[in-house]
Amino acid sequence: MARSPADPAALFAAARQGDRAATARLLSLIERGGEPGRAVGRLAFPLSGDGYTVGLTGAPGAGKSTLTSALIGHLRSLELEVAVLAIDPSSPFTGGAILGDRVRMQDHATDPGVFIRSMATRGHLGGLSLATPEAVRLLDALGRHWILVETVGVGQVEVEVAGKADTTVVVVNPGWGDSVQANKAGLMEIADVFVINKADRKGVEETRRDLEQMLDLSDLPHDAWRPPIVPTVANTSEGVAALWDAVLAHREYATSTGLLTERRNFRASEELREIVAERLRERARQICTGERWDDVTSDVVALRRDPWSAADEMLAPVEA
Amino acid sequence: MARSPADPAALFAAARQGDRAATARLLSLIERGGEPGRAVGRLAFPLSGDGYTVGLTGAPGAGKSTLTSALIGHLRSLELEVAVLAIDPSSPFTGGAILGDRVRMQDHATDPGVFIRSMATRGHLGGLSLATPEAVRLLDALGRHWILVETVGVGQVEVEVAGKADTTVVVVNPGWGDSVQANKAGLMEIADVFVINKADRKGVEETRRDLEQMLDLSDLPHDAWRPPIVPTVANTSEGVAALWDAVLAHREYATSTGLLTERRNFRASEELREIVAERLRERARQICTGERWDDVTSDVVALRRDPWSAADEMLAPVEA
Repeated sequence: MARSPADPAALFAAARQGDRAATARLLSLIERGGEPGRAVGRLAFPLSGDGYTVGLTGAPGAGKSTLTSALIGHLRSLELEVAVLAIDPSSPFTGGAILGDRVRMQDHATDPGVFIRSMATRGHLGGLSLATPEAVRLLDALGRHWILVETVGVGQVEVEVAGKADTTVVVVNPGWGDSVQANKAGLMEIADVFVINKADRKGVEETRRDLEQMLDLSDLPHDAWRPPIVPTVANTSEGVAALWDAVLAHREYATSTGLLTERRNFRASEELREIVAERLRERARQICTGERWDDVTSDVVALRRDPWSAADEMLAPVEA
Repeated sequence: MARSPADPAALFAAARQGDRAATARLLSLIERGGEPGRAVGRLAFPLSGDGYTVGLTGAPGAGKSTLTSALIGHLRSLELEVAVLAIDPSSPFTGGAILGDRVRMQDHATDPGVFIRSMATRGHLGGLSLATPEAVRLLDALGRHWILVETVGVGQVEVEVAGKADTTVVVVNPGWGDSVQANKAGLMEIADVFVINKADRKGVEETRRDLEQMLDLSDLPHDAWRPPIVPTVANTSEGVAALWDAVLAHREYATSTGLLTERRNFRASEELREIVAERLRERARQICTGERWDDVTSDVVALRRDPWSAADEMLAPVEA
């Protein structure tokens, strides 16, 4: 196949015919942002809506990639197609760096029913908040209806990105208590399913009790979803079918109770907010430049004008 | 003295009469931001312009607080008044936390010629970029013409805050090479004076050679300022007079060559940019709320409208 053209519409047409390189290039356009990224978004949007996202998060080393790989295997055995977005908020680099950890996932690299992609922030946090939902929408529009979103780490950003999935799986290990103390509350808040991975090690029951106790304390309404706790050994795929059943049970709950719609409304609102903020940042970049800007700056240094009235003057054209 | 009133104008009048509690409360208003903070700024602005800021930065444990305390002692022996702003970008807490490390500075706590204040980000980076120049302006307007700005740490933010002083002192220790490898380049870029503190330890000459070599490699124009390297033992005040002389020499250079004006222009421009960005963030918060916002969000979820055109509609009132 000839190298795909750079034009978003042509790339999108090729991607819909199954051209994986075109899909990869569309995702790069989304990641890079700006007008070409938005053009991809506009093409994908009307064809999206059937996808379901499953977020996986947990501390580094918890075995998320191995678990994701085992989940891919399970979904393929059910003859489902699957896409994986691996998000690394801490790394400004795309692809290479993070894929080093994902050797196992590459077992699936030649399977046309599997699409795996790493995404990074390019050093700009807003960038990831904007790019992730667009990437999901693109994969959805291209017919990848099961989308796993894996995030590395348990910091605030990771928890936020992971928590924007339809169902969120939090991966811990036996003895997790010591390693992620800091952000336990954040993880409790977003978990729809808990996985105790590496369950062939000792301490599984203590960890389960620990989690149950935290769930008891978290004051869930009696009719709310209580996150099930699934032990897995991702290496051998033990427990992975049970994990998937737990995900499907949560999906059923979320769909029938309206929780899914509520979450998607919240997510859309967050995304719109982010788009509005980004547009305003662009506007600020336009305002804060040029000869008039230099004049105003000199006035402030010379005490001829205070910085707030100077900012007011520069902002006058955009103040309604 | 009666407890100072909360009104910025009354507080400012009291602070000009030497009421230190009023000064502290004005700084709190600045730190908190919003309209009262801006009101303080407007009062201080026309009376500012005579202050000179000396930034001190370096890795945690380099002895910046002890050095600052020794510098205060030296300035007081020269019968100069001095204010210290200790900036901690990593801590969301003001005062308490950071002052634990600053016991030595408290030697000067009862001296009316010395004013010391810690400032923190309150978890909002823009906040510190906005508050620091305003705090400097306030102290300047209150007649504190020598203002030391100490930042904790050598990360990008710390380097940026420190680098916005009129003269920047970078504090290292013998053997610094190992500890701050990551941000050496950033420190080299902002240093006007290098201090090798704890110079009673071994390794001073190697560290000096290391710094000289980096300066040789940094390709300074032949008529540019070459940062002098001053060994100090802050504990005993050894070398502190020489450090102050180096600061004054740089000040003389910066004033006579126009470098000072250039820096202040750049700083004013950065501050204006930050004010503009903050106003736009406020605008975004106003836009992204209310019934119309909810309607638009529901439209996006229902695929009736794509998020970019939705954002366009919400932004229409502020797009010129």
